[in-house]
Amino acid sequence: MPELRKRATSPGWVIIATERSKRPQDFRVPPEERRGAADCPFCYGHEEQTPPEVLALGRDRGGPDTPGWSVRVVPNKFPALTHSPGERLPLALGRSLFQRLPGIGAHEVLVESPRHESTFGSHTQEQMEIILEALLRRLAELKRDENLVYPQFFKNQGRSAGASLEHAHCQIIVTPVVPPEVEEEVLFAGDYHTREHGCVYCDLIRVEMERGERVVEENDSYLAFCPWASSFPYETWIVPKRHAAAFESIAGSTDEIADLARLLRHAVRRLEISFASLPYNLMLHTAPWRGVDGPMAQSVYHWHLELAPRLAIAAGFEFGTGIYINPTAPEAAASALRSVVLEPEVTLSRF
Amino acid sequence: MPELRKRATSPGWVIIATERSKRPQDFRVPPEERRGAADCPFCYGHEEQTPPEVLALGRDRGGPDTPGWSVRVVPNKFPALTHSPGERLPLALGRSLFQRLPGIGAHEVLVESPRHESTFGSHTQEQMEIILEALLRRLAELKRDENLVYPQFFKNQGRSAGASLEHAHCQIIVTPVVPPEVEEEVLFAGDYHTREHGCVYCDLIRVEMERGERVVEENDSYLAFCPWASSFPYETWIVPKRHAAAFESIAGSTDEIADLARLLRHAVRRLEISFASLPYNLMLHTAPWRGVDGPMAQSVYHWHLELAPRLAIAAGFEFGTGIYINPTAPEAAASALRSVVLEPEVTLSRF
Repeated sequence: MPELRKRATSPGWVIIATERSKRPQDFRVPPEERRGAADCPFCYGHEEQTPPEVLALGRDRGGPDTPGWSVRVVPNKFPALTHSPGERLPLALGRSLFQRLPGIGAHEVLVESPRHESTFGSHTQEQMEIILEALLRRLAELKRDENLVYPQFFKNQGRSAGASLEHAHCQIIVTPVVPPEVEEEVLFAGDYHTREHGCVYCDLIRVEMERGERVVEENDSYLAFCPWASSFPYETWIVPKRHAAAFESIAGSTDEIADLARLLRHAVRRLEISFASLPYNLMLHTAPWRGVDGPMAQSVYHWHLELAPRLAIAAGFEFGTGIYINPTAPEAAASALRSVVLEPEVTLSRF
Repeated sequence: MPELRKRATSPGWVIIATERSKRPQDFRVPPEERRGAADCPFCYGHEEQTPPEVLALGRDRGGPDTPGWSVRVVPNKFPALTHSPGERLPLALGRSLFQRLPGIGAHEVLVESPRHESTFGSHTQEQMEIILEALLRRLAELKRDENLVYPQFFKNQGRSAGASLEHAHCQIIVTPVVPPEVEEEVLFAGDYHTREHGCVYCDLIRVEMERGERVVEENDSYLAFCPWASSFPYETWIVPKRHAAAFESIAGSTDEIADLARLLRHAVRRLEISFASLPYNLMLHTAPWRGVDGPMAQSVYHWHLELAPRLAIAAGFEFGTGIYINPTAPEAAASALRSVVLEPEVTLSRF
């Protein structure tokens, strides 16, 4: 019989309906046609096809917007929100049914590597650390703008997961409001804190490590596991063991950056080995920089990453109710992912 | 510049970013390969391939599960929730991080027509009225089960919108809990009612009809319009002009059923004519039958249908924030849909 599971860190439910299919080989995701590196705006030598870079790491010589970089960050050519430092957002919105704000924010693309075909599962450890360093630097810079409230870092892998360009890249969109999903999680963590005098994520990590059945992998700083009420089959979360509201808190620690780079590479690699073609979304969940829930979030929230494979299609039921139907029990998903044999670490040249 | 728009009837925002593309012809949705009627479990003569029917309308002679029906309702062969009348759900869940309920509910498939290729845009008026009648009858029957709380009626059209079978069909999943999306809308309508002493949907209908710029079509009983904060390009809502919390309230009125059938056919037809291939989800939003918000919903909620074309892909940003990026302003969408010329009504034979 199917089962309804209540989410542990936010309101709502999922339906685990394992009668509908379960093992990796039961998902038929057609492989995507690849366009290849020709005319790719993110490959070396095509730097003029993007807006001027805001950051490049690893370039020893040559000016901005020339080859030689390891990681390159550029504004999105078709931004969802646009950066206008100095412009002030209106404070009050009134009571009309039709309320709006100017689309002030930021939308940047982080080109992860000069290698067109590289993935989070195939980057070298060094490359992934540089990606995280570039991300942390951009967030530190953007946070200084008083209009900017919430930094949504995310990666869309594969066309059916929303990626319009093939070359390895992820994105940052910073919103001028606290997004509803974030507010919901912060309020949930706040309620839990009031009731239980502790952090719901810290408690969850402790219990998941004790039970073990949903654990995928861990290291000194992080735990990767399939959450109790996974919305998506093979959904994997990476949560820091040290309580910290904001992702930016790892900026000072080379150990925490290295451990995150390693666990993220491994978590994605396990999925890549399990599925021939794997569209997925990766989302950072972190404390808002400012705004109504900012101060509360700083004390009760606990940042983490959510990795959502797009093996099932969210449709009318999910949109209407907010309840996802997941055909794979997270215990079975974790067991399958744990059993993947990772290749031994080899030192690859960066190109 | 993009614009953030606040939703009028629920919490949250959307981003209208028209720089990213806008007119119907700018969306490239590849046409889906059709498998055709051979071996279709919903076509005449294949009735034994589904679980035994729970309702059939229009069959003059012959027993259950034989051809001759106009509309047929069967339990889903792979149910997300299963019907167990008499079994009692646990009342309290305790405080564990891992809470669950047995998957008690209902999951039924409404086969809309014997015609494999028929759509909501191509059904005859008579056929669409029979579909609504069948739906109303099933809801009346299911509502009698004290375990069942919320009836999610929905239609997934096209494989990329989640349909696994081609033959014209829609679905009913009844949950034993109030879904979070529904609770959010009911609470929002309740807050509005307390503050403004009226119904937010009634107020919205009045203002949309005055302004006209987002109106697609109307008749005596319903208004079809593209909502101010549309999450999806060409999103269209159909809202009854008469205030009523529950969809089932139209059961007594042949006029309201006929008007809904007509506006629904027209709204979908306008989309089908505008886009060569149109995957979409259609969702009923109605008052919960029972549960914590049941009594409040009965006085403040206002049922409606939401039609969500799947022309853009929800991805990492949308999942992380709950904020959708919509490349088409609803005013432009409504204008394009209004200008579609509908074929004159012709009386078609039902087969």
